[in-house]
Amino acid sequence: MIILGIDPGIAILGYGVIKYEKDKLYMINYGALITKPSSTMPERLSILYRGLKDIINKYKPDDLAVEELFFNKNVKTALTVGHARGVSLLCAYEAGLNIFEYTPLQVKQSIVGYGRADKMQIQQMVKAILGLKTIPKPDDAADALAIAICHAHSSHVPDMFRIK
Amino acid sequence: MIILGIDPGIAILGYGVIKYEKDKLYMINYGALITKPSSTMPERLSILYRGLKDIINKYKPDDLAVEELFFNKNVKTALTVGHARGVSLLCAYEAGLNIFEYTPLQVKQSIVGYGRADKMQIQQMVKAILGLKTIPKPDDAADALAIAICHAHSSHVPDMFRIK
Repeated sequence: MIILGIDPGIAILGYGVIKYEKDKLYMINYGALITKPSSTMPERLSILYRGLKDIINKYKPDDLAVEELFFNKNVKTALTVGHARGVSLLCAYEAGLNIFEYTPLQVKQSIVGYGRADKMQIQQMVKAILGLKTIPKPDDAADALAIAICHAHSSHVPDMFRIK
Repeated sequence: MIILGIDPGIAILGYGVIKYEKDKLYMINYGALITKPSSTMPERLSILYRGLKDIINKYKPDDLAVEELFFNKNVKTALTVGHARGVSLLCAYEAGLNIFEYTPLQVKQSIVGYGRADKMQIQQMVKAILGLKTIPKPDDAADALAIAICHAHSSHVPDMFRIK
């Protein structure tokens, strides 16, 4: 099973692609889609949509894993993240992927084993789990890989985390 | 010039299409795209995206007018509205429309002449300006028509309100 994890934002959308086979995880690729602040919001959304479409066409993931809507950020952040997340969900849905979502707490528990892990601990574990030489950069790509790993770890109960 | 005004939301996306020619406004059509709460978020976004695409293909508007991001609502509302608005902007951008945005205050001032007008006053004016027999329903469609009218009224300074 190929899993695409994403951490969507307007300026930067982190992604990570892993393969999960016979209880083992393999890194395929990771990176980030970047948009310029000088571009308009619709242009940036189009760049993200087309970029994500290219990634899906290239790696042909079965599942998309994304963080669940969070309600603890400020309203302006929520609005712009909502734009990027909406376009990402549309892209994955139109491409026929199964879509799953996890809370930040579920991701931390899945990767590090407890929910109060900090960013650095998560990144170290992502590196270790995937057998990487360095911590994936940017942070958004590391976060995207963490979400993908979390989904692989939850694949014995997939329907529990299907997006609503 | 054909103007498409929209009031995007996940459950209901109001739209209004008007024609602006030689300083006169003509109603073309209005209505709403509805999605069911039993559908998943990605399905609902796809329904909105495809529905809006059909409206654009049918009426071939030159411009899209939409309300500017507002920061006075709660975070949960902002996130879900952001999803619907992002997909709407993507759709209009991909179809080659010029996109403009107006604050709620600008819409009120443009329609009624002052910024503290209430919903009913706006709706009565929309009805009068477009020569309708009744107030357009649902409210989301009336709001969408108000934004479209606001854009027509601002068409002497179009670049001022181009989306950023």
